[in-house]
Amino acid sequence: MRVLRPTVTPYIMGCASVGGNKERKGQLGDLFDITYTDDRFGKDTWEEAESEIQRLSLTKAMEKCNISEKDIGCMFAGDLLNQCGASVFGLLDYKIPLFGIFGACSTAAEGLILASLSVNAGIDLCSVSVSSHNCSAERQFRYPVEYGALRTPTSQWTVTGGASFIVGCRKENALAEIKAVCPGIMCDSGITDANNMGAAMAPAAADTFIAYFNETGESPEDFDYIFTGDLGAEGSDLFRLLMAENGYPNIANHRDCGLLIYDPRDEDIKCGGSGCGCSAAVLSSLILPDLKRGRLKNVLFAATGALMNAATVQQGNTVPGICHLVKLCSTGG
Amino acid sequence: MRVLRPTVTPYIMGCASVGGNKERKGQLGDLFDITYTDDRFGKDTWEEAESEIQRLSLTKAMEKCNISEKDIGCMFAGDLLNQCGASVFGLLDYKIPLFGIFGACSTAAEGLILASLSVNAGIDLCSVSVSSHNCSAERQFRYPVEYGALRTPTSQWTVTGGASFIVGCRKENALAEIKAVCPGIMCDSGITDANNMGAAMAPAAADTFIAYFNETGESPEDFDYIFTGDLGAEGSDLFRLLMAENGYPNIANHRDCGLLIYDPRDEDIKCGGSGCGCSAAVLSSLILPDLKRGRLKNVLFAATGALMNAATVQQGNTVPGICHLVKLCSTGG
Repeated sequence: MRVLRPTVTPYIMGCASVGGNKERKGQLGDLFDITYTDDRFGKDTWEEAESEIQRLSLTKAMEKCNISEKDIGCMFAGDLLNQCGASVFGLLDYKIPLFGIFGACSTAAEGLILASLSVNAGIDLCSVSVSSHNCSAERQFRYPVEYGALRTPTSQWTVTGGASFIVGCRKENALAEIKAVCPGIMCDSGITDANNMGAAMAPAAADTFIAYFNETGESPEDFDYIFTGDLGAEGSDLFRLLMAENGYPNIANHRDCGLLIYDPRDEDIKCGGSGCGCSAAVLSSLILPDLKRGRLKNVLFAATGALMNAATVQQGNTVPGICHLVKLCSTGG
Repeated sequence: MRVLRPTVTPYIMGCASVGGNKERKGQLGDLFDITYTDDRFGKDTWEEAESEIQRLSLTKAMEKCNISEKDIGCMFAGDLLNQCGASVFGLLDYKIPLFGIFGACSTAAEGLILASLSVNAGIDLCSVSVSSHNCSAERQFRYPVEYGALRTPTSQWTVTGGASFIVGCRKENALAEIKAVCPGIMCDSGITDANNMGAAMAPAAADTFIAYFNETGESPEDFDYIFTGDLGAEGSDLFRLLMAENGYPNIANHRDCGLLIYDPRDEDIKCGGSGCGCSAAVLSSLILPDLKRGRLKNVLFAATGALMNAATVQQGNTVPGICHLVKLCSTGG
């Protein structure tokens, strides 16, 4: 039993998204709550800039929900920096219990699942905050962007951005209902190329969706859309192939957050966006508002993560993938 | 309200501890389930050795509980390596949903709290696995041990070891009951010395204990012991000072896991043990067995973490602390 159906229904009460300059110029630029033209967000280092993304998104999400820090029982927060550094320094001023989490680019969905469990265990209101920053991530995992290293065709562009979500037990004014969750199992398909994360994550995405559909008896056509986190172009092709091989040939309603966020004419992007901030910002800026206004009735949101660090890659380890899934429904429906 | 009292009582059903050579020669050496004289644990790298600690401890804990991976609804796992690397590669063979967590050296208690919430949300059985390794941690946070860098008087010795815990809803044969939990809020006291983690964590420990005692009306004397994670000698002194300043002068029953694990005559250790594996191994090898056999009736177990990474330290950031607390009671009492 991987699919969990909460007995106390958790709702996403509010959210806020933050983006950098390339995100501002992307397809969803106008939908972000906050964007900066300066990717340093007024700070001295890329790491401090990413912390500022965390701080801005949680502050904005709380403001939009009209709540203060004393209302929040606990925060779940994560990012791609070593030891959750962006979350720690971004949220340091909040006097709220903190659970640091790590699911690579799947962290938003991991946080939403854990927030759902917390609401079921009696915590009235939780927050989930995630972020990524192109420049802090690239220098940590690959090369400082200042080096101007050539990027391979399968590489993806780490999103400079993030989002925060407020999850609680009240239906009133909620953006969406969390109807079911399906946490991810690690899948290792032997990929050792840290520049091909789509291929590393696609098997995990297929594994989670297949487990979900098999257990529930639901199928892709039952949903307005099924979203994957950030498989990008390469990973999305592989994902659809794997789904077809496993009895789901018809997933025309599949969309990938990594392919939704940027301007497709931007050649820097290569295979699409990635990073914790990618799926989180798409969920916050595009999907949840459409669920709120009833334009969407129900979706599956499945964020995907590539599990690695610079040392494991250098030591020749594979890059296992993981995919956490959340079923979201309009509260009007 | 920081203290949460589960409505469905979670129990620690089983546990297992793993240690390296210095841990084997320490005060609790005979109480570990598995120890190795070779700190590489038969592997090629320190990182793989740490992954092996994760794998060994979970395998042993499941074996001691007579359960298999299909019985476990989800795993919580974390370590000190970048991007939870030891957890990922140590637990990769387990086909169990994984939640990566990070609370620095407080990760064991963070995991026990989240496992308790999960049991309350309807997951029958969860596992919590944490690890640290002296050589993988030192080279990542400070210097490779092969450099032979001099260690300052306030430094602590990262434990090569770890433990896994099985948390579930059945009282039968349980080691202990998780009666209440109190998650930690980050406390920043301005420490910038990555070699004085005791001072960085002591204010967080005091903050969590004071919040717990104030909310519950309980006091230190109500417990057989109150354990802190790995404050070490320096941090323990500061912790007692802070507790005394806040109305708790009498905590003679305070013990610190960092001061319990090693042979006090070992001069390498300086101020005591640290690392995710420190408090976890002490809980697994010493505290839980004593609760099981009724030698202890009730304890507070509060693991402490220093939140930093190599870059934040180099950039001059402070080292905030965090402390997650779990109240454990004998099931016989």
